[in-house]
Amino acid sequence: MKTLSESKLFGGLQGVYSHYSECCSCEMTFGLFMPERSGSVPLLWFLSGLTCTHENAMTKSGLQAWAARTGLAVIFPDTSPRGDAAADSPDYDLGQGAGFYVNASQQPWARHFRMWDYISSELRELIAANFPISRQAQGITGHSMGGHGALTLAIRNSEKFRSVSAFAPIANPVASDWGRKQFDAYLGDNRENWELHDASVLLKRIGYPGTILIDQGSSDQFLDLLRPQALLDSIGRRSQPAKFNFRAGYDHSYFFISTFAGDHVRHHARVLNAL
Amino acid sequence: MKTLSESKLFGGLQGVYSHYSECCSCEMTFGLFMPERSGSVPLLWFLSGLTCTHENAMTKSGLQAWAARTGLAVIFPDTSPRGDAAADSPDYDLGQGAGFYVNASQQPWARHFRMWDYISSELRELIAANFPISRQAQGITGHSMGGHGALTLAIRNSEKFRSVSAFAPIANPVASDWGRKQFDAYLGDNRENWELHDASVLLKRIGYPGTILIDQGSSDQFLDLLRPQALLDSIGRRSQPAKFNFRAGYDHSYFFISTFAGDHVRHHARVLNAL
Repeated sequence: MKTLSESKLFGGLQGVYSHYSECCSCEMTFGLFMPERSGSVPLLWFLSGLTCTHENAMTKSGLQAWAARTGLAVIFPDTSPRGDAAADSPDYDLGQGAGFYVNASQQPWARHFRMWDYISSELRELIAANFPISRQAQGITGHSMGGHGALTLAIRNSEKFRSVSAFAPIANPVASDWGRKQFDAYLGDNRENWELHDASVLLKRIGYPGTILIDQGSSDQFLDLLRPQALLDSIGRRSQPAKFNFRAGYDHSYFFISTFAGDHVRHHARVLNAL
Repeated sequence: MKTLSESKLFGGLQGVYSHYSECCSCEMTFGLFMPERSGSVPLLWFLSGLTCTHENAMTKSGLQAWAARTGLAVIFPDTSPRGDAAADSPDYDLGQGAGFYVNASQQPWARHFRMWDYISSELRELIAANFPISRQAQGITGHSMGGHGALTLAIRNSEKFRSVSAFAPIANPVASDWGRKQFDAYLGDNRENWELHDASVLLKRIGYPGTILIDQGSSDQFLDLLRPQALLDSIGRRSQPAKFNFRAGYDHSYFFISTFAGDHVRHHARVLNAL
């Protein structure tokens, strides 16, 4: 693991690190905020959206201000494999910057695009080995494509992610152009595989053993693609414990995220600090 | 004036606007955060540093979270004229992105590079005419080159800027490579003109009718260029009311700014909300 930079932030340390990922067969970069706190530190994962790197949320979300107050670490992974070796596409929503948090089975993506395993196993092990992070007390959140990743990873791995929330998640990718295109490219045409990566389908089928927090702007320019109504339908049918806030007038930007960052960090801190 | 974007943020509105500047003879862009507040709103100016546009502090400083709580508007001007018409230099610290908040008298800069007048007069008038901003209750802050701009503009225009603070300001540009090179290019070789744009010289000579707040990281990688010791010397000689915080371990980044953004906004709010 290489240290690319470390800066003091809210009394803690904001680092940027890189490492060779066996899972993605390339060098990967992530940001990690460690609060000023001794002992084993609870961790919040933040998964970013389309076109983002590890850097966007790290510099724009304001999450660390709240993490410092509540004693959480926050990790900001990249959204895909990178570099000349990994496949790419000219489209902003496929290939690099658009990993969609799945393990690709199709060419040319299968060798590198394994973000599901990277997040849920490899990076998890790497940081537990290198930082004083709690293995038990970990929660996950994210924005847009990253909200999709957070929900699907948490629902299928609720023993690893003990709290979950999302900002404007892609809530029903099997029925959206943010989903069908990518699942077809990465996973092939078997829709059963797609449904393993659809938060609305999974929630209806499996549920989540805790309260899910969702914030969604009512003036989000991508409501048609995000399909929050599908997630609301699943919450209703399953009586899933959830707080779904449709926020009047907010759009899809980091301005929306930073406005509600404090609510989300406190949601996770309540669960994780009690473990 | 053209509206480039408007996003809801902490209950208020973060806008980005452009207009033709008579002063700079080109189109200029700025960000303006308006809190949810009725009546005439006090305004905080945030001047950015070398290489920045209006966008860096708007997306990374976290100032608006605190401005929303205290009822301040915040304006984020660009740091120089822009575009093919305006002169430029291949250096990061001269020309576009490096206006240094002076009125250039030398070629090829004199026609466009008039950031002193742009900030203190033209943009001030433009926003007073277009937004419910108080003309009386305005304060100013900034980072690095923008901290230099904030201090020099406030000291020489204390009737316009009723409160002042700075993050890691270029404190003594007449004795720094962040200053001599630019003043020579923009203002020519008469050092008396340079001293009108040096916070340490001006503070010793004129003072400021209010408490100045400065935060400076002790691990700032540019301490040699910023020369905080010159500003401390002026504060000492004049017994200038000031709070100078040398912050252990912080560097020059926006992580440093965001950590202390709340302190600065509250400093300005105390003064401006009482006017």
